[in-house]
Amino acid sequence: MTQIVPVRHLFGPGPCNPYPEATSALGLPLLGHLDPAFIARMDRACDGLRTLWGTENTRTLPLSGTGSAGMEAAFVNTMKPGDVAVIAVNGLFGERMCEVASRVGAEVVRVDHEYGTPIDAQRVADAHPNPTVIAGVHAETSTGVISDFAALGAIKGDALLIMDAVTSIGGMPVKVDEWGVDVAYAGTQKCIGVAPGLAPFTISDGAFARRVQKPQSWYLDLGLLGGYATGTSGGGRTYHHTAPVAMVASLEAGIDRILAEGLQDVTARHQAAGKALQDGLEEMGLKLFAAEGHRLPQLTTVYVPEGVDSAKVRSYLLERFNIEIGGGVGKFASTVWRIGLMGPNANPASVALILSALKEAIAKA
Amino acid sequence: MTQIVPVRHLFGPGPCNPYPEATSALGLPLLGHLDPAFIARMDRACDGLRTLWGTENTRTLPLSGTGSAGMEAAFVNTMKPGDVAVIAVNGLFGERMCEVASRVGAEVVRVDHEYGTPIDAQRVADAHPNPTVIAGVHAETSTGVISDFAALGAIKGDALLIMDAVTSIGGMPVKVDEWGVDVAYAGTQKCIGVAPGLAPFTISDGAFARRVQKPQSWYLDLGLLGGYATGTSGGGRTYHHTAPVAMVASLEAGIDRILAEGLQDVTARHQAAGKALQDGLEEMGLKLFAAEGHRLPQLTTVYVPEGVDSAKVRSYLLERFNIEIGGGVGKFASTVWRIGLMGPNANPASVALILSALKEAIAKA
Repeated sequence: MTQIVPVRHLFGPGPCNPYPEATSALGLPLLGHLDPAFIARMDRACDGLRTLWGTENTRTLPLSGTGSAGMEAAFVNTMKPGDVAVIAVNGLFGERMCEVASRVGAEVVRVDHEYGTPIDAQRVADAHPNPTVIAGVHAETSTGVISDFAALGAIKGDALLIMDAVTSIGGMPVKVDEWGVDVAYAGTQKCIGVAPGLAPFTISDGAFARRVQKPQSWYLDLGLLGGYATGTSGGGRTYHHTAPVAMVASLEAGIDRILAEGLQDVTARHQAAGKALQDGLEEMGLKLFAAEGHRLPQLTTVYVPEGVDSAKVRSYLLERFNIEIGGGVGKFASTVWRIGLMGPNANPASVALILSALKEAIAKA
Repeated sequence: MTQIVPVRHLFGPGPCNPYPEATSALGLPLLGHLDPAFIARMDRACDGLRTLWGTENTRTLPLSGTGSAGMEAAFVNTMKPGDVAVIAVNGLFGERMCEVASRVGAEVVRVDHEYGTPIDAQRVADAHPNPTVIAGVHAETSTGVISDFAALGAIKGDALLIMDAVTSIGGMPVKVDEWGVDVAYAGTQKCIGVAPGLAPFTISDGAFARRVQKPQSWYLDLGLLGGYATGTSGGGRTYHHTAPVAMVASLEAGIDRILAEGLQDVTARHQAAGKALQDGLEEMGLKLFAAEGHRLPQLTTVYVPEGVDSAKVRSYLLERFNIEIGGGVGKFASTVWRIGLMGPNANPASVALILSALKEAIAKA
């Protein structure tokens, strides 16, 4: 018997509703992972990723896991036990970086920031004289805050700069080369507008040359992976593992769709939708969480009004309107909502819908 | 402009052509990874996997990576530096197990077998008096050989028995509980007939209790993962990472399709197709590679006839017939072909097609 699948408006912190072109590509005839026709598709996906990343890095590819696998790949390939990682923590994903780095045996120097505020590059610079790695989150999905990676690039010294761009890529300017970022990873399910399952990744030649030769993860070993996805081992593609071919086809189609609209126009669309949402929320008398001037357009954090039950509102939105929004994270779990307008959802109709529905939900729930 | 996508017959070692039901499910409206409707789908997928695995293990779930991520998860969660792993090597994936185990810092005791022959349980038993782990490959994709895991279960003693079932699950009998297997992993892209991207995984309660508390991989930490996918952390699902929701929907649909036909009938269909193919190849005068009595029906290995250029034949098949078959592995790269009839491809029409096409390709190429 047919299982009824609800048609949701995915206005949470991700996944968002995918671009239709990305969904259609999932249904294309499957290709083998070594098929010349698939390799061509993979190459197009990697080229498209270079544009989204703002990089000319040869080693730019989608890893076969979600964004968190990208984070793990960043640390296991750059750090040996005892190496020092200075990690800027201003949200959940900074916290996670500390955990992942510690499992490589790294000495983790945390630079804690109040949730809702951006990374302070000077404090990061002052934290340690010569770290192996400096890492932080460009767009903190847990708090809705953007941080300035050009500033981090300027103070990194000899350290490798690792950037989590899970929520920024495809929705706002990302300039890996210009900012001096050495390693960056992302996810597909936010502003790229593709289902979750891949981790777009890029690493500079310099960082690759300094990489750990035999990282603790075989699956995420960039030395082995590069030979497959970017043909850099010389003499054709070497088999490493079976690539998730359907997801790669979807990624290629999603990026193609973004570039057809134009990356600047897509960024502007996210900017406009976020601004309209944030203005609308303030007009409703709600208070935004993220520090002014550092707010992500694609992911808005807002305080739950006093006396309102956060979970009840979210249930009401889901049950009555098929709208998913996110709760807060950690100590803000029930006092903050997270509203994402990403990918195809970054548009005026989504803004109108969520504002109207949220007003009703707050009144009724 | 439309990119023409070739419609391939995927008769290599995997991926195979997916079941149409699995492909259709990729196009369903996307759900959030914490949506109750998605959790229900994930639960159904896990239930279905229990049936395919032949287990009642609570912790039975699809990991968010390909089969090789499953292999890594098996080792990082069961072994600490200095622990002993006895690994039966009778093909590429046994070799890979040694590499993955060594990156956990394990002391690896290899039990080498000639490629094309099955694992000798007695030799494995004699290799070390008290290993932490015994591991091997149930269906070696690189050689087309099946090994007897009931025999390994009988000699495992206090060791944990790890089984690679990437190519067996969904195509032949797999009895995790009956055989005494403690940890097993697979892929979706072989006999389950789903696109690559997930690693079905199962671990017994006993093995879970003995697990490494803080494995070197955060992404594949079963202690953290279990709380999300199987709700075993108590009090609802905890967020670990964003599940690849589209792929999980596809897996659920693929398994549902298998169970609708009936697992025994599906197994019999693979058996019949493999037998017909192997008989047909021998009638053509070709020589099978895997030892008689230990041949996989779903993945047939056959010697390239003397004087025939393996690569030319494969190119001919691809270009003229849109048929993909695999070359051999390692020193057999150009002297063996691998022909898979998996998932929906395990049927008489596929047999007729590949036999006829191969005959022409050998004559013409």
